[in-house]
Amino acid sequence: MAPVKVFGPAMSTNVARVLVCLEEVGAEYEVVDIDFKAMEHKSPEHLVRNPFGQIPAFQDGDLLLFESRAIAKYVLRKYKTNGVDLLREGDLKEAAMVDVWTEVDAHTYNPAISPIVYECLINPLMRGLPTNQTVVDESLEKLKKVLEVYEARLSQHEYLAGDFVSFADLNHFPYTFYFMATPQMVPKKP
Amino acid sequence: MAPVKVFGPAMSTNVARVLVCLEEVGAEYEVVDIDFKAMEHKSPEHLVRNPFGQIPAFQDGDLLLFESRAIAKYVLRKYKTNGVDLLREGDLKEAAMVDVWTEVDAHTYNPAISPIVYECLINPLMRGLPTNQTVVDESLEKLKKVLEVYEARLSQHEYLAGDFVSFADLNHFPYTFYFMATPQMVPKKP
Repeated sequence: MAPVKVFGPAMSTNVARVLVCLEEVGAEYEVVDIDFKAMEHKSPEHLVRNPFGQIPAFQDGDLLLFESRAIAKYVLRKYKTNGVDLLREGDLKEAAMVDVWTEVDAHTYNPAISPIVYECLINPLMRGLPTNQTVVDESLEKLKKVLEVYEARLSQHEYLAGDFVSFADLNHFPYTFYFMATPQMVPKKP
Repeated sequence: MAPVKVFGPAMSTNVARVLVCLEEVGAEYEVVDIDFKAMEHKSPEHLVRNPFGQIPAFQDGDLLLFESRAIAKYVLRKYKTNGVDLLREGDLKEAAMVDVWTEVDAHTYNPAISPIVYECLINPLMRGLPTNQTVVDESLEKLKKVLEVYEARLSQHEYLAGDFVSFADLNHFPYTFYFMATPQMVPKKP
């Protein structure tokens, strides 16, 4: 069976969301880089994969997909046969809790944490822009309140959706990984 | 069987997303209003339903859910027995296309259309704020580009996910409904 293909740089959080899922289910895959500087994401070839010209895109034989969460769920459903069930769609209540905390990641956790990652890492390291500390401070305040709810949830259950690891947890990895490398989390050397 | 409960004002787009799904599957339900002026969404009773103090929340017996897309999918799975299958989770490729266009609604269509609805309806009618025409014009430009992709998609297929109506289509109803009432869509009376 030909390996599935993921189009986009692995360092992108949305590409990483797909890769984490592929790794969890032990699927064979190939990462095809997309050269943003050469505007490859807006090329006719890529627009066939993703009509909005974004990354990631995904190919499995003649099936083309885009939108990282949709790709990730396809991967988790397809390779569920490997014995890893991270969507729990066979159980009405468990599937609902996976969905709830997947949506919380998208609409509450990410909007709080992503500006910190942009301001502290992406802007200074990749775009040559200074860190806007006001944005960082406001986002940190927001994130603290969000994490209080997470703390309460995780004091009742082992994982976000319940007492089982799920897609909801995996969704938090990409931004949290980068957040751990920001000055908030890495103490300055003396 | 006791009807399920939806907490939040029906005029909210996120509440409406859930109600559209309940209507589509013919489920019995009750809408319980939440009084924002009385800060009922931050009350201890409501925080049990939704720890982030937002609407909608949902109750089915002892199951409490929040996040409108998660609630909607629970509803569509639970009442699939009524003969309406809007998630297509039994078909790997169809389910993936439903997910793709559901994500496009959340991350591309809504961010383009919602500022227009806020500026033209919600701010002037509910908050006594003037319409910021610059925001409207920029969002209209963005929306036009998004709709070009939709036009291409819908010239190939009857519905967004394919030749079947799905959750992806329903997700577009709430904001599109309000957008149709904005000055962009309603000609001024002479």
